Amino acid sequence: MKTVYFVTGNKGKVIEAKKKLSKNGIKIIQKDIGYPEIQTDNLERVADYGVKYLKEKLDHPFIIEDAGLFIDSLNGFPGVYSAYVYYTIGCRGILKLMEKKENRKAVFKSVYAYYNTKKEIFTGKCKGVISKEIKGNKGFGYDPIFISESGDKTFGQMNPEEKNRVSHRGKALDKLVYFFKKE
Amino acid sequence: MKTVYFVTGNKGKVIEAKKKLSKNGIKIIQKDIGYPEIQTDNLERVADYGVKYLKEKLDHPFIIEDAGLFIDSLNGFPGVYSAYVYYTIGCRGILKLMEKKENRKAVFKSVYAYYNTKKEIFTGKCKGVISKEIKGNKGFGYDPIFISESGDKTFGQMNPEEKNRVSHRGKALDKLVYFFKKE
Repeated sequence: MKTVYFVTGNKGKVIEAKKKLSKNGIKIIQKDIGYPEIQTDNLERVADYGVKYLKEKLDHPFIIEDAGLFIDSLNGFPGVYSAYVYYTIGCRGILKLMEKKENRKAVFKSVYAYYNTKKEIFTGKCKGVISKEIKGNKGFGYDPIFISESGDKTFGQMNPEEKNRVSHRGKALDKLVYFFKKE
Repeated sequence: MKTVYFVTGNKGKVIEAKKKLSKNGIKIIQKDIGYPEIQTDNLERVADYGVKYLKEKLDHPFIIEDAGLFIDSLNGFPGVYSAYVYYTIGCRGILKLMEKKENRKAVFKSVYAYYNTKKEIFTGKCKGVISKEIKGNKGFGYDPIFISESGDKTFGQMNPEEKNRVSHRGKALDKLVYFFKKE
């Protein structure tokens, strides 16, 4: 069985990755060691920078992931800073900013980087809308206020399997699995 | 006359620095070359990282500055990501988040880093409150919604000399001038 480190402090992400990868013969071990994330409006650049830093520290194949919620009518906010914004103003802050906004379109984006002698990047997107209220206590982050265009439940109302089928992270993980199978 | 590069893309910061430094015999030359800013909740760490990157690229003494507006009732938001938040949701977004908030306390923080064979850090703070409306078209960023505790005008209603006397950046610049005089 192939073993891959997942460098993240986020247990929710690890659960989602394990659901997709374990049934494909890949063992995920969480490594909560941290790495510098640069300020940019581009998730790929954050991942690039992280790989450059971590490949000097780890002697094992690893993955990292960065994701963000990009809201149309807020010019892409909270975007690459989604985690920080979540821990300060949270879902309530986002709903406040969205009051009276007719355009509620948003995109969740995920970028996985895999490193094993060289770097590979896998991206996934999920289009949807920002709900009018907080719904569901599953998932994490902005899940309770995001409804994907393929459904009417928020991500916060879905279990990991359900969410993985449509989510940005699920789509990026599918590409990663496909790559692992070829490797 | 001493010449120091100011590595920044922000002309407003250059104007403020020139006002303080030129009368103290220091010539400032803006260098808009960019440097990686890491994601952290700590301005000093952003400056540290910038110096480490730039000292390999520049053969001249240089300064960089990072600043942020930390709002009490928003758990420090927008903080180190003030610039990004400004370009997405702007002053209007902040006022929206502050609707019905009784605690309007905020602190502007500035960190200057100076490098000339070794790194020096100078910090300045300015306590104040978030105004209820946008006022003034001077300054930049959140200036039109910040009222320092020593006055009743927003920073956006002050000219650079007036603002420099009380502002976070003015205070950090005073420390920098003091250091230059000793050097």
